[in-house]
Amino acid sequence: MKLQTLDLKQITINDAFWSKHVDLVRNEIIPYQWDAMNDRIPGAEPSHCLENFKIAAGRKTGEFYGAVFQDTDIAKWLEAVGFTLAAYDIPELEQTADEVVELIGEAQEADGYLDTYFIIKEPDKRWQNLCEGHELYTAGHMIEAAVAYYQGTGKRRFLDIVLKLADLICDTFGSKPGQLKGYPGHQEIEIGLIKLYHITGEKKYLDQAKFFIDMRGVGENWFLKEMKRPGHHMIFPEFADYDTKYSQSHLPVRQQKTAEGHAVRAVYMYCAMADLAYEYQDNGLMQACETLWRNIVTRRMYLTGSIGSSGLLERFTTDYDLPNDCNYSESCASIGLALFGLRMANITRDASYIDVVERALYNTVLAGIALDGKSFFYVNPLEVWPDNCIPRTSKEHVKPVRQKWFGVACCPPNIARTLASLGQYIYAQDDHSLYINLYVSGEAKARIGGKEIQVSMETRYPWINSCKVTLRNVPAEGMTLAMRIPEYAENYQVEINGRACGYRAEKGYAYVNISNDCTVGIRFEAPARFIRANPKVRADCGRVAIVRGPLVYCLEQIDNGENLSAVYVKADSVISEEESELFGGSVLLRFDGYRMDEDRWDDHELYASHKMTLHKAPLKAVPYAYWNNRGIGEMSVWIKELPAGGADAES
Amino acid sequence: MKLQTLDLKQITINDAFWSKHVDLVRNEIIPYQWDAMNDRIPGAEPSHCLENFKIAAGRKTGEFYGAVFQDTDIAKWLEAVGFTLAAYDIPELEQTADEVVELIGEAQEADGYLDTYFIIKEPDKRWQNLCEGHELYTAGHMIEAAVAYYQGTGKRRFLDIVLKLADLICDTFGSKPGQLKGYPGHQEIEIGLIKLYHITGEKKYLDQAKFFIDMRGVGENWFLKEMKRPGHHMIFPEFADYDTKYSQSHLPVRQQKTAEGHAVRAVYMYCAMADLAYEYQDNGLMQACETLWRNIVTRRMYLTGSIGSSGLLERFTTDYDLPNDCNYSESCASIGLALFGLRMANITRDASYIDVVERALYNTVLAGIALDGKSFFYVNPLEVWPDNCIPRTSKEHVKPVRQKWFGVACCPPNIARTLASLGQYIYAQDDHSLYINLYVSGEAKARIGGKEIQVSMETRYPWINSCKVTLRNVPAEGMTLAMRIPEYAENYQVEINGRACGYRAEKGYAYVNISNDCTVGIRFEAPARFIRANPKVRADCGRVAIVRGPLVYCLEQIDNGENLSAVYVKADSVISEEESELFGGSVLLRFDGYRMDEDRWDDHELYASHKMTLHKAPLKAVPYAYWNNRGIGEMSVWIKELPAGGADAES
Repeated sequence: MKLQTLDLKQITINDAFWSKHVDLVRNEIIPYQWDAMNDRIPGAEPSHCLENFKIAAGRKTGEFYGAVFQDTDIAKWLEAVGFTLAAYDIPELEQTADEVVELIGEAQEADGYLDTYFIIKEPDKRWQNLCEGHELYTAGHMIEAAVAYYQGTGKRRFLDIVLKLADLICDTFGSKPGQLKGYPGHQEIEIGLIKLYHITGEKKYLDQAKFFIDMRGVGENWFLKEMKRPGHHMIFPEFADYDTKYSQSHLPVRQQKTAEGHAVRAVYMYCAMADLAYEYQDNGLMQACETLWRNIVTRRMYLTGSIGSSGLLERFTTDYDLPNDCNYSESCASIGLALFGLRMANITRDASYIDVVERALYNTVLAGIALDGKSFFYVNPLEVWPDNCIPRTSKEHVKPVRQKWFGVACCPPNIARTLASLGQYIYAQDDHSLYINLYVSGEAKARIGGKEIQVSMETRYPWINSCKVTLRNVPAEGMTLAMRIPEYAENYQVEINGRACGYRAEKGYAYVNISNDCTVGIRFEAPARFIRANPKVRADCGRVAIVRGPLVYCLEQIDNGENLSAVYVKADSVISEEESELFGGSVLLRFDGYRMDEDRWDDHELYASHKMTLHKAPLKAVPYAYWNNRGIGEMSVWIKELPAGGADAES
Repeated sequence: MKLQTLDLKQITINDAFWSKHVDLVRNEIIPYQWDAMNDRIPGAEPSHCLENFKIAAGRKTGEFYGAVFQDTDIAKWLEAVGFTLAAYDIPELEQTADEVVELIGEAQEADGYLDTYFIIKEPDKRWQNLCEGHELYTAGHMIEAAVAYYQGTGKRRFLDIVLKLADLICDTFGSKPGQLKGYPGHQEIEIGLIKLYHITGEKKYLDQAKFFIDMRGVGENWFLKEMKRPGHHMIFPEFADYDTKYSQSHLPVRQQKTAEGHAVRAVYMYCAMADLAYEYQDNGLMQACETLWRNIVTRRMYLTGSIGSSGLLERFTTDYDLPNDCNYSESCASIGLALFGLRMANITRDASYIDVVERALYNTVLAGIALDGKSFFYVNPLEVWPDNCIPRTSKEHVKPVRQKWFGVACCPPNIARTLASLGQYIYAQDDHSLYINLYVSGEAKARIGGKEIQVSMETRYPWINSCKVTLRNVPAEGMTLAMRIPEYAENYQVEINGRACGYRAEKGYAYVNISNDCTVGIRFEAPARFIRANPKVRADCGRVAIVRGPLVYCLEQIDNGENLSAVYVKADSVISEEESELFGGSVLLRFDGYRMDEDRWDDHELYASHKMTLHKAPLKAVPYAYWNNRGIGEMSVWIKELPAGGADAES
């Protein structure tokens, strides 16, 4: 039996670190995104998302505007609303959302079809361009949203809409005569169908998800076949020379050994593969998941838990190719990686997956949103020199400041729904055990051993590496509490009611037997430390980064001056921690470094033989999650290392 | 009076360094490119270039195939043939070329129009898409070719063809009512028209070139205006969001202070600006040339004399933005830079321009072609990791091996015409002086002081830094010999007939008074040395490169093992020179370096705290010009520097 996440209704978060982000969802992001989708944000790219639905519903006339998958904005927004309403009672928001659901229902066609791009713009082209049309991707997000909304509000209207859509998809795609043997260009429908199975118990939805996964990359490539069809019209001309790896359709999924192509598509597919591997007890599929995961985390992932090294096509490239200043590292891809890792952890009870999930959430996902919740990063570089991030060059995708909103707005609502559903990453359970994956203060309820136990977690993590978990209403026959031991934890200790206690350590969890209501405390050390990349990572060779617990740190120009490439550090340098009020309370890091003397260089000299000398320079690092919250400037995660003994500093 | 280049007919090259490259032009490249243009190279992208002319001439039926500027392939080939026939008598080649000229003549329309793309494909769209149509660019290359062919063979047929074309252009574009006020999307026609003026003495061609330069960037942008026209059809959809900087049409040329946009377009335009500045004694234009040159060479040029930092759009980016592994650095752009520098040197008699010309020719231009003359680089990175130069990623433009031919084949024929016209870079003259810009063995004749003096140069440069120039038939009133003193020359000495003699040094030239036939010897030291980039160049910060005279050196995997990012050097390391038979005779460089120990790292570890230690490793560098002549592998020009005292090597 795999672990289950807890119902979000049963979780509240009251955490010094997370609440300021999570609260943004209902206080800032949901209202802001509502305005954005209604085109009411001055200076932001127009969304037209709701307008498209009004046109499709016949309430208005006009043209479709936006990306083919513009509908997913509203879907992700509704999903975030659903998650939020699970925890908070906000009647006006619920009313607004209900109205949107009605609008969606009106836009839906009689046979269940729902996609405003095709309804308005190409009604006779349904399902004919799966490669680029994103109908199944959009449907997947609609289904996920409806499931969240149903779970959050108990209301069935949205669920009924997507069930009709899902039924149409089940009728349309399949191996029976007359059915399409295709699969989505952008995976996501699989996750939605699997959720629909879980909520309805209808096996056909699970089978349909399996069909899409099983068909992928088998036989003649569906997308190449589509492109050969007479009259086929490319939506994105840049895909003319289509690389089937881009959509992970180059091989049957069970034969895929390396993470390839568009990073978001890849991890969304791996999520579905993991779910299906468990549901069908499909060892081959599980093995593929493990192989792909391992390829990502040992070869193709940034220290910040981000993925997708190529700015062009937002995709995976090759092993150890992890450039810091021109990578894509999409916020959505880290979200997908977290979703994949969570599934793998729940199936395997191996906390090493959560180590990666945590890295993604605490670094890339948080960096994706400003502290005020009003601007967002799509692309998450590990090194930025703002002057050369200019349009119409190789670095045009790298933005040195968060953007208000995007024409193709996948990341902001994706971050919102992730923060709104953070609870699923914190706890897991089975019939007799509660698992603590992330240390986040708050309350939860879980049904274990037939009783509803009450959980209360108290921590100042990640600033202080200890946590107290109080359990009440523990069943008479006892239960197990599994606390995650992060890979970076040193001298991990567990106590019950203040007294050291024994535990069984297995795959990154400390298993503690609980027989009565009690408080379980854990503590460990995770001092700030320098870390290096495998020397095969050319971009990081000769450099160090700084991590402290789950947080990756970076240097910013505002603290360390211009030209961070001219900065060195000796890796035996002592890092001192400083509690700060910055970023709503944080720990900053200070240490001695060196800076290249630049004053030998005249302004007109580009190349010369001037000696390179260094002078001492105090350095200050801040959490990567919070970079670019104090204006524009250079940023770098990786710092040049001065090999031991190598600082003949002249100062 | 500006300096004049010598007639190529008067120059022969017999040089240990250059002849093996120059001879490739007539022995390999011209026949090979002839086959390529006739689509007879197995495995190479089709050219269809001659086929297009046959269709336009009505000799065949069929469709146009290739880029809009496919005609320039044949133009550059004919230009190289013209240069070659100036020095060598090759009757079969001349006959083939004559036939091609006839074909071109047949393809030309009655009114002089000549562009097979528009003739075949869009006959009613002439001059309507100057932004992308490349008609004026193509015409410029045709004119340059015809001038070279006329000068090389004395035959007027091709010249007459292009005069008719030039007359049509003069009638079509201008400030009179009914004339188009546009200018070329890709500059080149200006250079052609100026050459036509020089050969015919017809001032209208010069004025026409001035018109194009003067109109550029003035008032409403011509290209944006074109795009607004109803029914306008984009040839390159990627330019939809057109950046006028891309084509240097963002400002009137005299107001441009920084080198912007597509690098080849930029330097071709600067060439024309320099010519016009001289012809019209236009100080404002000359100042603009100096400002733009200075911006390039002090801010935006690679050590190898290449330009264009962005892989996307092959363009200049921002000051000091010089990434080594994803740059464009097109071979053609270095050729254009050399052409620009040569013009500036001839006008100003300032040899510092030639320092840059030499850097471009000896490094990027030579690297652009394999030693066997059969394959070519478009893109010239300074650092290559072949594994990650894969299609459909940010690095897809970077090829780790030279390519046989290209669909868009600008570079191979451009390199050919440059090698075939190398003589123009070697010598310059005025009425009483001969200038030696490059040290290249061979013979030349020049009319000075009313007499035809005979020049014989003997050198083993750049391997040995000395040169003897023998002058015969020196006029009775004497003459001046100006020998360039390269910026890297140390202890420069001049002697006449073996005896030290005085000279006047001015702007990089040693001026020697010559009264009789004699042999002038020069010698200097230019030992291999480490060089650094201005620390503002983030990509090179903390690294050194090695230069020896005009040559930039690089490390290759074949000599130094895999992962050149893990290699360090101490810049006080002694570099020893080794004469080698490699690359047809060369000097290789050996020195002690260090290599990161990689054996601490397990295969599954991507990030860890393993200490970084180094062990000694002997390193070997080869001329950058010759990289990738021994198979595929990593290459790097810039090597990590171990600050003095910084090698606590464990070995």
